[in-house]
Amino acid sequence: MSRFFSDKYETLVPYTPGEQPKILNLTKLNTNECPFPPSRKALAFAAEHTRPLNLYSDIEGQDVRAALAELCGIGPENLLLGNGSDEILNFAFMAFCDEKKPAAFPDISYGFYPVFADLNRIPYTQIPLRPDFSIAPEDYFDLRRTIFIANPNAPTGLALTREQVREILERNRDSVVVIDEAYVDFGGESCIPLIGAYDNLLVVQTFSKSRSMAGARLGFAAGNAALIADLNTIKFSTNPYNVNSMTQALGLGVLLDEETTRANCRTIMENRARTVEALRALGFTVLPSAANFIFAKSDRISGAEVYRRLRERAVLIRHFDKERIRDYNRITIGTREQMDILLKNIREILEELP
Amino acid sequence: MSRFFSDKYETLVPYTPGEQPKILNLTKLNTNECPFPPSRKALAFAAEHTRPLNLYSDIEGQDVRAALAELCGIGPENLLLGNGSDEILNFAFMAFCDEKKPAAFPDISYGFYPVFADLNRIPYTQIPLRPDFSIAPEDYFDLRRTIFIANPNAPTGLALTREQVREILERNRDSVVVIDEAYVDFGGESCIPLIGAYDNLLVVQTFSKSRSMAGARLGFAAGNAALIADLNTIKFSTNPYNVNSMTQALGLGVLLDEETTRANCRTIMENRARTVEALRALGFTVLPSAANFIFAKSDRISGAEVYRRLRERAVLIRHFDKERIRDYNRITIGTREQMDILLKNIREILEELP
Repeated sequence: MSRFFSDKYETLVPYTPGEQPKILNLTKLNTNECPFPPSRKALAFAAEHTRPLNLYSDIEGQDVRAALAELCGIGPENLLLGNGSDEILNFAFMAFCDEKKPAAFPDISYGFYPVFADLNRIPYTQIPLRPDFSIAPEDYFDLRRTIFIANPNAPTGLALTREQVREILERNRDSVVVIDEAYVDFGGESCIPLIGAYDNLLVVQTFSKSRSMAGARLGFAAGNAALIADLNTIKFSTNPYNVNSMTQALGLGVLLDEETTRANCRTIMENRARTVEALRALGFTVLPSAANFIFAKSDRISGAEVYRRLRERAVLIRHFDKERIRDYNRITIGTREQMDILLKNIREILEELP
Repeated sequence: MSRFFSDKYETLVPYTPGEQPKILNLTKLNTNECPFPPSRKALAFAAEHTRPLNLYSDIEGQDVRAALAELCGIGPENLLLGNGSDEILNFAFMAFCDEKKPAAFPDISYGFYPVFADLNRIPYTQIPLRPDFSIAPEDYFDLRRTIFIANPNAPTGLALTREQVREILERNRDSVVVIDEAYVDFGGESCIPLIGAYDNLLVVQTFSKSRSMAGARLGFAAGNAALIADLNTIKFSTNPYNVNSMTQALGLGVLLDEETTRANCRTIMENRARTVEALRALGFTVLPSAANFIFAKSDRISGAEVYRRLRERAVLIRHFDKERIRDYNRITIGTREQMDILLKNIREILEELP
């Protein structure tokens, strides 16, 4: 820290992203990336349609928003693009939280929520997950707080139904409810169809997971036009050209090849079912996941030890050294081959145990 | 504005970027873009070296930082990459300003500075430019404020020498001085060589202008390692993957073709000299510019009228309806052909005058 750093951030602890080590032949199952690159069709479209890079990008992202609007059955005025969904989540903390509108989110969820709150000096409450790690809608009724829920939740993979989210919305008509749907395409129910009925609902999604664009950075928010306008006020006061032209062209290309996205999601879900079954056969407890990752523990070996031994074998998963969940590991669902490598190594590790 | 928007932004007026209208055959001289696209060499390098887009981008931007470090003669620990330089400027307002460390910048300068200050609720002083629109270093001595200076300044194009900046640094050893060098490559003197001597100096540059990457979004900060660490704390608390993989690859490609950048800058400076001469011959007052734009006024026709009549003729320049400068227009220096179109139209407009 320099002697110039503002006091207000003295205690700020930044988010710790999953590591990106340079290990040879790494089986990387630690950051919930999609194992499949964007399709040739999408890449070819992007190569053809990227506007000249010496000119500024389209500040409104009109083409991507038009395509997304059609896909989601909403208007372009209901959509904001972001440089990844993290940027949009931070905008939402800025726009809809303050001393009088504190935040609330589950105690076990996306680790960035408390960081965004701390950064913006927003008081927050962490609502404990139930013992089975589920989110109980009634725990979020009448909170008088801005609510952030990852659905499906991370790192558990458990999902609320749209009807359960609707109950939360009904009981918080005067507070914004942000539903972070980063993982929704792997078996969850999106709440975008509810934005017409609830002016307090903001849905945030990302192209990083189901749309294979983690490295291209594209996220979006869907909500009432007035909520989107507020987020635009923040965007135009921080970084108006937040989404570059290459990403806009690729985003559009990916949206025009929705069949590939759907096919990839189906493959991930099949690989997930196979992996869950195999791990359960090995004695693991695996939470039912609606995401492109699973959350699993063994009674025979600690979570930290599974993580460590797999890492030695060039298989990287994510371990959170945190109360209630340190027995577990979060494992990204990759290709069938990657999951076979994971399972082979887990079997060997279990066989080595005394 | 929604009923949920935080009170704290009630009076926030976002930045107004230069317009991007869809006018056929537009001669676009309003947003200081480079008229030349990235070189084939740079684009080919990027196409070859972009990491798979389904994987997250390199969070540290190691390759670009290594190349920049070599070019600038500093260490990678002295460099931070941003999603454009706007993002980094906002980070600097966040990190180095607060109630106790208010901001100071010229009254006529980059219009985003007061927006960043308002957004972060930072008190600020705007220091008037001298009557000739110059920045007088002594006006910035012993301010006890975090200082932001665009050098060359916008929209005037006037530059301080490195020695003048050094005087400001010397007389503000306990305050951060941010030198925004967006336009430095067109005739200014960079202050990056001073970062070793001044732990209070942060230099911010962009790839948007001289490096033809406005649409790709890449900026960087150079400074003492402790200042850079503070900015990283902010980055890792807002959007760790702020620079996407395509932009990182293209940025590296552009850095590996520094000859093209230098040649483009020389061409722009030649076109600038020609344009200034021609406008002066037409009776315009033109400030001496060290940037890729000029600031010019006529005694025969108002600034707003020049802007309006050129726009009717599909030539877009930038007019600021603001005290002291509303007689002027800011005109981006483009290709020789673009400047000929500008001059031809200005001649015709002048001929039409009574």
